[in-house]
This record gives sequence, structure tokens and C-alpha cells, in this order.
Amino acid sequence: MNPDTLKIYLEARKKIIDDALDRHLPGEDRYPPDIFKAVRYSLFAGGKRIRPILCMAAAEAVGGEIDPVLPVACALELIHTYSLIHDDLPAMDDDDYRRGMLTSHKVFGEGVAVLAGDALLTEAFRLMSERELMKNTPPETLLDVIREIAVAAGYFGMVGGQVVDLQSEGQAVDPDTLHYIHTHKTGAMIIVSVRAGALLSGAGDADVDALSLYGRHIGLAFQIADDILNVEGDRKMMGKGTGSDADRGKITYPALMGLDASREKAGKLVEEALSAISRFDDRVLPLRMIASYITERKM
Amino acid sequence: MNPDTLKIYLEARKKIIDDALDRHLPGEDRYPPDIFKAVRYSLFAGGKRIRPILCMAAAEAVGGEIDPVLPVACALELIHTYSLIHDDLPAMDDDDYRRGMLTSHKVFGEGVAVLAGDALLTEAFRLMSERELMKNTPPETLLDVIREIAVAAGYFGMVGGQVVDLQSEGQAVDPDTLHYIHTHKTGAMIIVSVRAGALLSGAGDADVDALSLYGRHIGLAFQIADDILNVEGDRKMMGKGTGSDADRGKITYPALMGLDASREKAGKLVEEALSAISRFDDRVLPLRMIASYITERKM
Repeated sequence: MNPDTLKIYLEARKKIIDDALDRHLPGEDRYPPDIFKAVRYSLFAGGKRIRPILCMAAAEAVGGEIDPVLPVACALELIHTYSLIHDDLPAMDDDDYRRGMLTSHKVFGEGVAVLAGDALLTEAFRLMSERELMKNTPPETLLDVIREIAVAAGYFGMVGGQVVDLQSEGQAVDPDTLHYIHTHKTGAMIIVSVRAGALLSGAGDADVDALSLYGRHIGLAFQIADDILNVEGDRKMMGKGTGSDADRGKITYPALMGLDASREKAGKLVEEALSAISRFDDRVLPLRMIASYITERKM
Repeated sequence: MNPDTLKIYLEARKKIIDDALDRHLPGEDRYPPDIFKAVRYSLFAGGKRIRPILCMAAAEAVGGEIDPVLPVACALELIHTYSLIHDDLPAMDDDDYRRGMLTSHKVFGEGVAVLAGDALLTEAFRLMSERELMKNTPPETLLDVIREIAVAAGYFGMVGGQVVDLQSEGQAVDPDTLHYIHTHKTGAMIIVSVRAGALLSGAGDADVDALSLYGRHIGLAFQIADDILNVEGDRKMMGKGTGSDADRGKITYPALMGLDASREKAGKLVEEALSAISRFDDRVLPLRMIASYITERKM
């Protein structure tokens, strides 16, 4: 694969998402100003839009279109952004910078940062329940997708993973706990991003199951690759200090099983992800490119 | 009105809500334990369940039943509880006690308290989107109700009010700002509680409008009554220190217009609320009792 192909694809998709986010969200001139500024500050802080891109790619993989899933794709990014703002708080990871920019609470204060996260999470559900925007989707299907996303974002998914991550800092963590953190803190939202794209496009059970399996494998592969980059990455490329996980006593795959075994594990997961979607036609090409990219990326 | 009638009614309704919350929420034995403990700790900390009770009473006022609106009524309480946990955080109101109990962050730590709020907000939308639980409601109506609740809870409603409240502490606040805080921080969710009950029961526009007006008036009346109680209330009755708003430089109606004018204003709002629902038959009696109770209550 030509690496430029994926780069051009990802940039074009990111632009579509950024435009939709800008269109669907209130401007910074609304009252009270700080909350709208804080929401847009974090939302347009250089995110790669992986979750919305996966959602759109899954829609296309099952023969669907991009436009009807865009509001839900945006909602996935709103939920991701809220989780980053709350993760960065002093009571959690206590990070001053993310992607080279000051974190929300450093700019707007802790109180507004908590509320900006709350607003983003709430806005995600507002956006998904706008029937006018989602008129191509049967309301029953939309409710099912909202429910799946709420489950993936809540205490049985992302929030659960975050709790265990928070309470494991500085502790001796076993492989099962590390697996729980990765599959819940990031994995659950990755899987539901793919599922939402497929479900909203009217995919059948077999296709949804295959794509879920793909999501499960790349979600974990992404996390292991992140852990590896955190250990060996370059400060400039990552936009934040590397080695920071080790510094704060966070457990990672490389710390637990070594760099080589971690690389091997990530590679195996990518293979399994590709195998899970081997039944699809060429419309699945973007999902194949994204999976392959995980173990090759340097940023 | 016999004051016992309302007391018995409110206690019976609170029991229905408490049972439904217990039934619809995961037990404390789930993993990771702290998040489920924290969620239940705050949820069962003695809340009066005003929002769910209003939702159910509005359903009955338009000829509907209680059971079909229960999951949404529970969701309103989940959202209210999340807002209290985040309000109490050190970065916000920094309260150690609420209703005589230690606040979430004092028991579970700040990180888990933030996440417990996040989980409750997410769970509210999970519960509302359970089609199996809401099968008596057309999915289109349910989506509209979810959207209205998200708007009322977000930056154009409750979160917006909280931002202005937070940023007004210790400042000279004008009447417009105080009005904005009260109508948004608490008013928006009170109105949508009544609206949701009516909409889910298939009420027509005229009934929904009348009940919205009722909600608007009692929402503000409740807040003014709270301000008055905060000034003159008894420590034991309120379960937290009184005069605490003044201590931290929070502006209140009594501080702005005096106690007598505040009492008069609350009384006038209650009259207007009763007038708004004068068109309904006897099924509106609980809503009438609740409105009258606002200016009479001592706790």
C-alpha cells in the first residue's frame, strides 16, 4: 500500500468531520461564553477523528453512505473529547498538555473544564436524537444505536476502564487488569463506532458481527501501539512528553511483556482484524488500510 | 388542603421511584466496585425525587399512566444526581456534606466522583433508549423526549446555569444574571420533567404548553423558596449548614430584593402556576398540591 493513499484518505475524512462538527455545534458567541469556548477549544485541538472515521468507513463497508451517519459520527467524537477533558483533570491524570496544547482546565479552570466535559457528553446525545438530522434512519434503529453507545461510554465500558486505570496507578497490575483497562477505556468506544456505522446503514447480523470483531482487534492493537510509542516515541512527534506513562507508574504492555512481545501481539491483532473482514468486497479497503497502518505509524 | 395528604402522596411516589431506580441500575457487586458503589451512594442519599414525581404527575394530568414513563422519570433523577455530585466538587461549590451525608468526593475521592457523575449522566441516556422498557411509547416520541432532556441538561440549560453560577461567586450579580442562573441551573430540568411526562403520554400541544408554563413558574418558585430557606432555615431541617450561600458570596433572591419581596414573588409564581393548569380536570390535583406546598414547606 502507498502510505500517501491512507494519509490523503484520513485527511479528507477528518475535514468532513471537522466541517460537520462546526456546523452542528453552537458558535463561540453564545452565552455563557466560556462554556462554548471551552467546548470548541478541546474539540478542535487537533484530534485525528479515528472514531468517526471508523464509523463512516463501516457504513461504506456494508454499502451505506456517509451523510446519514455523520451526526452519530460527530457524537462519537464529542464523547471522546469529553473523556479526554475529564481524564486530564488534576484529580485524574493531571496533564497540563495534550497534543502540544494546554489542557482545558489549564486554560479555563477546573470548574469550567468539568462542565465542558459534561456539556460535550450531553450534546452527543442531543445530536443523535435529532430526528430531522437522522431522517434516513428508522427511529427504532437510532434508539438501538444510542443505547449501544451509552453502554460503551458508561460504567460497563469507557468509564469503567477509566476507574480501573485511575485506581491502578502506582500499583502492581496483572495482565488481566491491563487487558480490562485497554478493552474498556478505549476498546468499547472503538467497537461501537464501527457497529454504529454498520447498524445505521441497515447491515445484517453477520456483517455487524464481523465488523465488531474487526473493531475489537484494532482497538486493542491501537492501545498496544500507543503504549509502544509512549515508550520509544519521539517527544516532538507525539506532542507530549514520552515515557510519561512510566513516570507516573502507569502499567503498559511493554512494561508487562517487553517491547518485542508487544510488537508481535499488535501485529497478530492486526492480522486477526484483517481476517475478520476478509468476507467483504472492495468497499472495505479503508478499514483494511486503517488496520495495517496501526503497526506502521510513527505518530 | 390537609398537609398529610401531600406528604403521603410524595412518600408513596418516592417509593415507586426508589424501587424503579434499584431495579434498573446494576448492583454494587459489579466490577469495578467503586463506581457502582459511588453511583448508588449518591442516588440513594435521601433525594426527594421531585423531578420524577413531576414527570409522573404530568403523565396522569393528561390521562396517562405512571408505568410507561418510569424509565424516563428515573433518568431525570440520574441526571439530577450527577449534577449534584459535580456541583459539590472542590473545583465547584466545594461542599463536604449534602443532606447530612458526606459528598461523593469526600467518600470516594475526586477522580471517582467525577466518573460517578459521568456514569450517571451516561446511564440516564442508556435507560431512556431501552426500547424494551419503553415499548408503549412510539420511538419518534421517545427520541423527541431524549432530545428535549439533552437540551435542558446541556449548555443551553442546566450546565449553562451552573457555569454562570460558578463564575458569579463573590461578584456583584445583577437581577438578570440571577434570573438566568435560576431558570437554567434548576428551571430547565423542572420544565422538561413535566413536559416529558405529558409528551410520553401522548398529550396535545395545548396541554403540553400549559404544563410547560406550570413547570416554568414552579421551577423559579422552588428556587426562590430554597434561597429563603437558605437564609432563615434551621440547620437540622435542611441537613446542611444554613447561610452557606451568603458565606461563600453566592447571590440569592433575598440578598437582592429582601426577604419580604422574595416571599411575595414566590407566592405570585405559585398562583401563576396554578392558573396555568386551571384548564385540567381533577387528575391535575397532585400538581396543584405540589405547587401550593412550595411556599408552605419548612424542609
